[in-house]
Amino acid sequence: MIAALVSTKLHHLYKNLFWRSFSTKFAMANSKFEYVRNFETDDRCLPNTWIVVRVDGRGFHRFSEKHEFAKPNDKRSLDLMGKAAGRVMTEFKEICLAYGQSDEFSFVFKRDMDLHKRRASKLMTSVASIFTSAFVFHWPQFFDIPLKYPPSFDGRVVLYPTTQNLRDYLSWRQADCHINNLYNTAFWTLVLKGNLTNAEAEKRLCGTFANDKNEILFSEFGINYNNEPQLFRKGTVLVRDKKKKNEEELEGRLTKDILALNEDIIGDAFWNNHKILD
Amino acid sequence: MIAALVSTKLHHLYKNLFWRSFSTKFAMANSKFEYVRNFETDDRCLPNTWIVVRVDGRGFHRFSEKHEFAKPNDKRSLDLMGKAAGRVMTEFKEICLAYGQSDEFSFVFKRDMDLHKRRASKLMTSVASIFTSAFVFHWPQFFDIPLKYPPSFDGRVVLYPTTQNLRDYLSWRQADCHINNLYNTAFWTLVLKGNLTNAEAEKRLCGTFANDKNEILFSEFGINYNNEPQLFRKGTVLVRDKKKKNEEELEGRLTKDILALNEDIIGDAFWNNHKILD
Amino acid sequence: MIAALVSTKLHHLYKNLFWRSFSTKFAMANSKFEYVRNFETDDRCLPNTWIVVRVDGRGFHRFSEKHEFAKPNDKRSLDLMGKAAGRVMTEFKEICLAYGQSDEFSFVFKRDMDLHKRRASKLMTSVASIFTSAFVFHWPQFFDIPLKYPPSFDGRVVLYPTTQNLRDYLSWRQADCHINNLYNTAFWTLVLKGNLTNAEAEKRLCGTFANDKNEILFSEFGINYNNEPQLFRKGTVLVRDKKKKNEEELEGRLTKDILALNEDIIGDAFWNNHKILD
Amino acid sequence: MIAALVSTKLHHLYKNLFWRSFSTKFAMANSKFEYVRNFETDDRCLPNTWIVVRVDGRGFHRFSEKHEFAKPNDKRSLDLMGKAAGRVMTEFKEICLAYGQSDEFSFVFKRDMDLHKRRASKLMTSVASIFTSAFVFHWPQFFDIPLKYPPSFDGRVVLYPTTQNLRDYLSWRQADCHINNLYNTAFWTLVLKGNLTNAEAEKRLCGTFANDKNEILFSEFGINYNNEPQLFRKGTVLVRDKKKKNEEELEGRLTKDILALNEDIIGDAFWNNHKILD
Repeated sequence: MIAALVSTKLHHLYKNLFWRSFSTKFAMANSKFEYVRNFETDDRCLPNTWIVVRVDGRGFHRFSEKHEFAKPNDKRSLDLMGKAAGRVMTEFKEICLAYGQSDEFSFVFKRDMDLHKRRASKLMTSVASIFTSAFVFHWPQFFDIPLKYPPSFDGRVVLYPTTQNLRDYLSWRQADCHINNLYNTAFWTLVLKGNLTNAEAEKRLCGTFANDKNEILFSEFGINYNNEPQLFRKGTVLVRDKKKKNEEELEGRLTKDILALNEDIIGDAFWNNHKILD
Repeated sequence: MIAALVSTKLHHLYKNLFWRSFSTKFAMANSKFEYVRNFETDDRCLPNTWIVVRVDGRGFHRFSEKHEFAKPNDKRSLDLMGKAAGRVMTEFKEICLAYGQSDEFSFVFKRDMDLHKRRASKLMTSVASIFTSAFVFHWPQFFDIPLKYPPSFDGRVVLYPTTQNLRDYLSWRQADCHINNLYNTAFWTLVLKGNLTNAEAEKRLCGTFANDKNEILFSEFGINYNNEPQLFRKGTVLVRDKKKKNEEELEGRLTKDILALNEDIIGDAFWNNHKILD
Repeated sequence: MIAALVSTKLHHLYKNLFWRSFSTKFAMANSKFEYVRNFETDDRCLPNTWIVVRVDGRGFHRFSEKHEFAKPNDKRSLDLMGKAAGRVMTEFKEICLAYGQSDEFSFVFKRDMDLHKRRASKLMTSVASIFTSAFVFHWPQFFDIPLKYPPSFDGRVVLYPTTQNLRDYLSWRQADCHINNLYNTAFWTLVLKGNLTNAEAEKRLCGTFANDKNEILFSEFGINYNNEPQLFRKGTVLVRDKKKKNEEELEGRLTKDILALNEDIIGDAFWNNHKILD
Repeated sequence: MIAALVSTKLHHLYKNLFWRSFSTKFAMANSKFEYVRNFETDDRCLPNTWIVVRVDGRGFHRFSEKHEFAKPNDKRSLDLMGKAAGRVMTEFKEICLAYGQSDEFSFVFKRDMDLHKRRASKLMTSVASIFTSAFVFHWPQFFDIPLKYPPSFDGRVVLYPTTQNLRDYLSWRQADCHINNLYNTAFWTLVLKGNLTNAEAEKRLCGTFANDKNEILFSEFGINYNNEPQLFRKGTVLVRDKKKKNEEELEGRLTKDILALNEDIIGDAFWNNHKILD
């Protein structure tokens, strides 16, 4: 609220009657109503825990169809998601890492941070709002087709007490990325290159396991899933890198300070390279 | 999340070794990590209470300066706020009324509604996101100047057990509108018409009461505050009106079904006219 | 905690070394550790709602067997429960009504009360503790057999926004009393008077409805369930009655100010007589 | 609740009218009212955190006076507190350690435990109730004077994400024990041996630090505070010890499996000896 300091006590009885009663009415009204503030609850996150805010696209199945997303992955959309996530990290220096895939993005706040007194409501709504705002704002940079209607994202807060719990959370999201992407790659290959209907492709994949899907892609379509772009198979992880860079090195960066990587974050290698959670 | 149903059990031991180990690794990984879902908390709102979600502009003092908002009120901005709020009401039929002023908007969900199982996180992040998205999306319809950067809004949920508590909440926001607007009108009149500096205007108003400000406006500048636009003095209340209308009657409506009014909502008259909370 | 105000700043450097280092260590320790208080959460109940605290016997099936409770109802136990509940009401004047049956008791706090800042933890643990304490303390007044081990009760807080919700809660508990008591009366009559084994009695009642059970009691054992004591069929409701009474009228009261009644609280009659929730 | 499985569907239309309507009314009533269960909230504690439940005496200043507790410490009371805490640990095997001093006791649940689905209400009310019950139950074993009225304890739950946080919590309570006990020892020595009034003693100690109090005790009364019983200076820590013991070794134990110690738990030595939190 663009607040303004206003005195509310009542006096100046010699003023003309109209203004006085007018003034009196509102000053009294305001103090009479203000008790409703006590109905707000304190939802501060437990101290010394990792705070994760995840945003998820609302109704993105429909949204992706209306805006003719490429199948199974639309690079423009994934890049725009990364751009929006970068904006969130630029506004909140307390975020040390973000990971995104499909139409979701997770933001990790440092466990000792005290932004907004760690109030869950404030954190999750701010992140969801900034992310959404940047998504719409930067849309024209990534898509030729104009936005047909305003897209939206919901959000949630989850707390993780240990670094292992947090890493398992991030692993869970990346494993989810892999599993969904493998399915979608097989599905859309069957539809687009194999000329199956959606229903036929679904039936064909029903009950299959990862190795079956790899086999279908390889033996029937000559596609080695492992050669698919890392962006699709691994998702995007954003980290900060404040080391000075020359012009050349800056190329391809999200911002001067934020790096977008498409690496495995389940194993230890990534975490040994980037001492983010220590 | 654009989910995909994926089988995860392990078998097909006769498949070639590479795919098998690959498959095994991820299927196991996913089930190994999934325990982290248990860290999410259930934040359902108490049943049979009025749920209010309020969104507030983040850093709107700076935002309004960067985008050269008119002082003390920018009609374009207020209309855009109303437009964005209308979008929220269009997506959530469970909202029966919305009230906005300055850079904030409050949305009232019917007390018996069960949308998203009444989960507070889901409701407040969705509302904040839709509102923000529509604000950015519709910006060019209201402003000639392009957006310089993506604006954002935070949000919160507050529960009110009785209709009286809810009406007091709405009265509190409208009294706040009045008090701030009177101050801002006096302040900017002193600055823009009275040629005072900001500091001088602030000093002049320090310790004054509503009647003093009315007096200054009237006796020094010939302004009758009561003749200022209702939009500025009362804010905007959005209500649904599903009665069939002819072309003419539809004019000036926010949408076919949503009416934007600039009326007093502190007294009983409004509520007797619109049986919204009954 | 029996607190003591203690200064903790460090000085008096001229004191002998041992005491100084001793003092220093603990004063510093205390201020170093005190941060852990921030991990406590604020769990204030939503204002203007009815706060119900219900206590339930823990492991009372075993407890009632070990202490040879009469079947299907033990009047001594029910009277002791009422006595303990009266103690809770004596300590907390903010409780306007209590209702108990079997091994449970519900306490209704006035909706506008502010005891312990309405902190849920404080309220439910205090009620559970006082109730338990009085139950053990007064045991010898009601039972000849000594307590074999300390019994316990868990507790919970539930909020009800409207008086109708609260009355439905109380009706739910009394309907539960009726249903369980009818079942237990039929079950133990079949066992104790009909010479069935527990298993046979259970089988006989399996799938029957209330009218079947009434029929069995009436046609086979000449028992008119409606003539069973109100204490068993209706449970116990405690209300305050501060009207001055003569000696005679005080007889049979729980305390000078608290009345124990065994009446129907589902219909309106009780509430019309006792203007408790108005 | 001593529940009983009861069928509630309606039929048997050939039964006599009275019983039918009777049955119908209650079966319908119960299902009509049961919706009130949805007002209960889910208050499960965040997984993988240390759960501490602390109970505190309610009104123990008055209670200790009415029951003529020795000043500054009453060994009978402290031993009874320990006895009651032992009972809590016997009922809840998930508690790995308890620490008590003055009229408070803290119970530490293992971080991976899942008792009562980790519901905070259930845990804190059960602990407070068992503790209270055992306190009253065992009173005659420790005091000759009978209980004048039922004492009570409130309770709370606090979560600690790391073992360091938990140890700091326990250190905070033990530092508090030291600081209060030193004050109380000085205060009551001045009153009981120095013949000061309470007010004079309070004034004498006002603004003093730990070393001042030690000095007063030593130089004026020949008391070396460090020689005071460890029970008073350190409080009581309860740990489990399941190693088989011969008769002799069992002597002085709280129970066969629970050991009561009066040791420093701020330093590392205790934790190195007892691998409790690993």
